[in-house]
Amino acid sequence: MAGVKLIGARPSPFVIRVEIALNLKSIDYEFSEEIYGCFSKLLLKSNPVHKKIPVLIHDDKAICESLIIVQYIDEVWTSGHSILPSDPYDRATARFWAAYIDEKCFSSLSELRLAKGENEKLAAANRLFEMLVLLEEVFVDNCSTEGGKGFFGGDKIGYLDIALGGFLGWLKAAEKLVSMKLLDEKRTPELMGWAERFIADNAVKGVIPETEELLEFAKKYLPKA
Amino acid sequence: MAGVKLIGARPSPFVIRVEIALNLKSIDYEFSEEIYGCFSKLLLKSNPVHKKIPVLIHDDKAICESLIIVQYIDEVWTSGHSILPSDPYDRATARFWAAYIDEKCFSSLSELRLAKGENEKLAAANRLFEMLVLLEEVFVDNCSTEGGKGFFGGDKIGYLDIALGGFLGWLKAAEKLVSMKLLDEKRTPELMGWAERFIADNAVKGVIPETEELLEFAKKYLPKA
Repeated sequence: MAGVKLIGARPSPFVIRVEIALNLKSIDYEFSEEIYGCFSKLLLKSNPVHKKIPVLIHDDKAICESLIIVQYIDEVWTSGHSILPSDPYDRATARFWAAYIDEKCFSSLSELRLAKGENEKLAAANRLFEMLVLLEEVFVDNCSTEGGKGFFGGDKIGYLDIALGGFLGWLKAAEKLVSMKLLDEKRTPELMGWAERFIADNAVKGVIPETEELLEFAKKYLPKA
Repeated sequence: MAGVKLIGARPSPFVIRVEIALNLKSIDYEFSEEIYGCFSKLLLKSNPVHKKIPVLIHDDKAICESLIIVQYIDEVWTSGHSILPSDPYDRATARFWAAYIDEKCFSSLSELRLAKGENEKLAAANRLFEMLVLLEEVFVDNCSTEGGKGFFGGDKIGYLDIALGGFLGWLKAAEKLVSMKLLDEKRTPELMGWAERFIADNAVKGVIPETEELLEFAKKYLPKA
């Protein structure tokens, strides 16, 4: 089958990244929903190595790993706004921070969810908070809202915005779990503004599930230990 | 200072990747040797987040993480042979397998080195062997020596060749440590040929340290547990 299909599940931060990239490029696609805990035949055939979502199927070819898919989308659908920066150094910097987010964010969120007791929970929340404080610096260094650049990628959502933004729903869910603000007016004021702009963007609207929905999903499906 | 400087240390598989990419593009560079266990001021300033080698300094800007640096080199020095495939799908595939190697290879090599007893050592060696058997399939699917394509990247060394090839020295060192062949005539005959061609390439000659040198380095510098 020609065309574009996304194998995914709505709560996945990695799937959200791909949905946003597809929306940014105004690409029509079919969403093939995976049920948590099961593997569809399509998924097993398309990503036999990791058996993980998301997978993008484009013209019968499977592309795996969210950040690789986002780059693929940007490279195939070249008309319109570019998701990756055009300058090689800016591109390297965006890739560096996206990899940093991948290394820190998912593991800290899982640790927070699986924490035994308040101390462990707080330690994981602090790791997330430290990550966000560092990204606040990156944002301030690279962007200026005064100059009209509201995103890491400039005046439009780019690669690093997508990499971090995919996690926004789960970061809000984490805030509920620890009763503590991770995005905070004192330490991360710019990122707070960024998050508002990101969520309000047309490419993002309706893509990130509500906090309660994510918490419900975690309770129902995710392993407890 | 303008120009190109590589902060590294010869035994690092990640530094080797960058050296090969620089050689492929015939780029003159200064090598700034890090002493294991110490951090130079230049390294701390250039990669404050991870404090890790390699770092490429180009026109006073620091680029970190080996695979990001290789992509940067390919994007900045565009004349001559391209390191990444030109087709977006082939590029996504090369990125996928390079990430797979990064996930499996270093951790399995460390586990093998730190193994307590023969069983642990063998388990780690088997993980490396499984990785290579899978990459043999990838090589056979994508390349054909009969058609003159001796590398993952085609008839010349490309991104995935560099990603795996950076580890060749340590894979040979691991073979010595477990007295077992990881590249094997029966299960990975194509990769054996690939490894010979890779090491004989002008861009690689002299870059990968000898096995004994690596074993000596591991004994002297790397943590024992």
